Amino acid sequence: MLIIGERINTSRKGLHEAVEKKDEEFLKEIARKQVENGADYLEVNCGTRLEREVDDLPWLVKLVQETVDVPLSIDTPRPEAAEAALSVHKGRPIINSISAESQRYEKVLPLVKKYKSGVIALCMDDRGIPETAEQKFEVANNLRARLISDSVPEEDIYLDPLVQTVGSNQVVGMAVVEAIREIARSFPKTHISCGISNISHGLPKRKVLNRAFIVMCIAAGLDTGIVDPNDADLMQSIIAAEALAGKDDFCVRYIEAYRAGKIV
Amino acid sequence: MLIIGERINTSRKGLHEAVEKKDEEFLKEIARKQVENGADYLEVNCGTRLEREVDDLPWLVKLVQETVDVPLSIDTPRPEAAEAALSVHKGRPIINSISAESQRYEKVLPLVKKYKSGVIALCMDDRGIPETAEQKFEVANNLRARLISDSVPEEDIYLDPLVQTVGSNQVVGMAVVEAIREIARSFPKTHISCGISNISHGLPKRKVLNRAFIVMCIAAGLDTGIVDPNDADLMQSIIAAEALAGKDDFCVRYIEAYRAGKIV
Repeated sequence: MLIIGERINTSRKGLHEAVEKKDEEFLKEIARKQVENGADYLEVNCGTRLEREVDDLPWLVKLVQETVDVPLSIDTPRPEAAEAALSVHKGRPIINSISAESQRYEKVLPLVKKYKSGVIALCMDDRGIPETAEQKFEVANNLRARLISDSVPEEDIYLDPLVQTVGSNQVVGMAVVEAIREIARSFPKTHISCGISNISHGLPKRKVLNRAFIVMCIAAGLDTGIVDPNDADLMQSIIAAEALAGKDDFCVRYIEAYRAGKIV
Repeated sequence: MLIIGERINTSRKGLHEAVEKKDEEFLKEIARKQVENGADYLEVNCGTRLEREVDDLPWLVKLVQETVDVPLSIDTPRPEAAEAALSVHKGRPIINSISAESQRYEKVLPLVKKYKSGVIALCMDDRGIPETAEQKFEVANNLRARLISDSVPEEDIYLDPLVQTVGSNQVVGMAVVEAIREIARSFPKTHISCGISNISHGLPKRKVLNRAFIVMCIAAGLDTGIVDPNDADLMQSIIAAEALAGKDDFCVRYIEAYRAGKIV
């Protein structure tokens, strides 16, 4: 599973202030720790710094890439901030995100093509967020087809079926799981990504729900997660789930993780 | 989910000796604790007491039912031991187990009918244990049809797709998950049961694998588990999985479990 570390986000505790004060050591430590714990990509998001995002985001990209040797996922809805960040990024970035909403699609697509980036493709369009598995798959199918017809290679697409909280509607969890299963079955070369933690919004002990939900999603075909790699319980659930889902021959990676003290 | 507590089994540490010495207090405490922790049924198995099983099993049934007010799952391959236990059981028992193997089917069926019991129906026949999801479903379908034609109500049948260890063959986990999904889709009134812990046989930190696997199985439609209710991590995974699988409207049971200190 591709792990995108989610911790460098100014909506998280202490991060807005750290970016404001340019507290490089604090931020570098967060980057290092996530990579140590298994992140393949790191997300950078300074959405709370709205007035300063166009300057802060490229500054963060440079700082993080001076510190750790991983590519980044550039998380912003503002194309000008994304472009500023992409222009200083080394390696193959992921843009988070495009969607089938007309305006967003047209503004983000040129960046995906110019930087030959991966792109998280949110399964929503001008009608909003689809509710059922069938509707999510329909939007995923259309968005993927459009990106491919616009010359984005299918293996650069990370379809995100958009997780909502199960606290307000008990069917949303299985809608996502079933959408993932259908996407994985139909498009084996296209990636599937999720912001898992939205499932537990508003509920107590969110980590218990998050780690059960990612297990269900992995069984259905999820191959990319935007998660907190410092959450050891979550990471061991991912390793166990991949073994159980037949993605770890003879459980070699599970046993290695156990020997490294990561399965407790 | 129907929880069948698995701890009263003479193959577990200390149990063989406790049954041998007729250590009633020790055994009663195991029964009480499982029910406190959420068991709906308790399994009784004294298979290691081969020479004495016909006497020990009914003794255990009486002892446990004097102690706690739940019905039992009578776990033995020997029809004479099962009959001795069933003859003293109060309430509606579950017989663990019948299968599509010719001899076993013919010997166990009369007990199921005489005692109007539930019955765990192992998805194996004279050819052995099926490997793939399709083969497991085929055996499940035939066994269920035969039981129904022999007048066993479909809601008394607990189909068990037979879990094997993922350590020796990485496809067995998903074969079970997919068989469960197909059984649940095809036969919504028939129960599905699993001995979950077989999945991790021979692997380290088995509980990590067991709790991820039961989450996958619940997402697919598992409604009955033979588990250790004293394993708090497993029980909270089950409660979380049922909420995520849309079986807990507005997460009411999850939130109640949290308030009761069971989600940590």
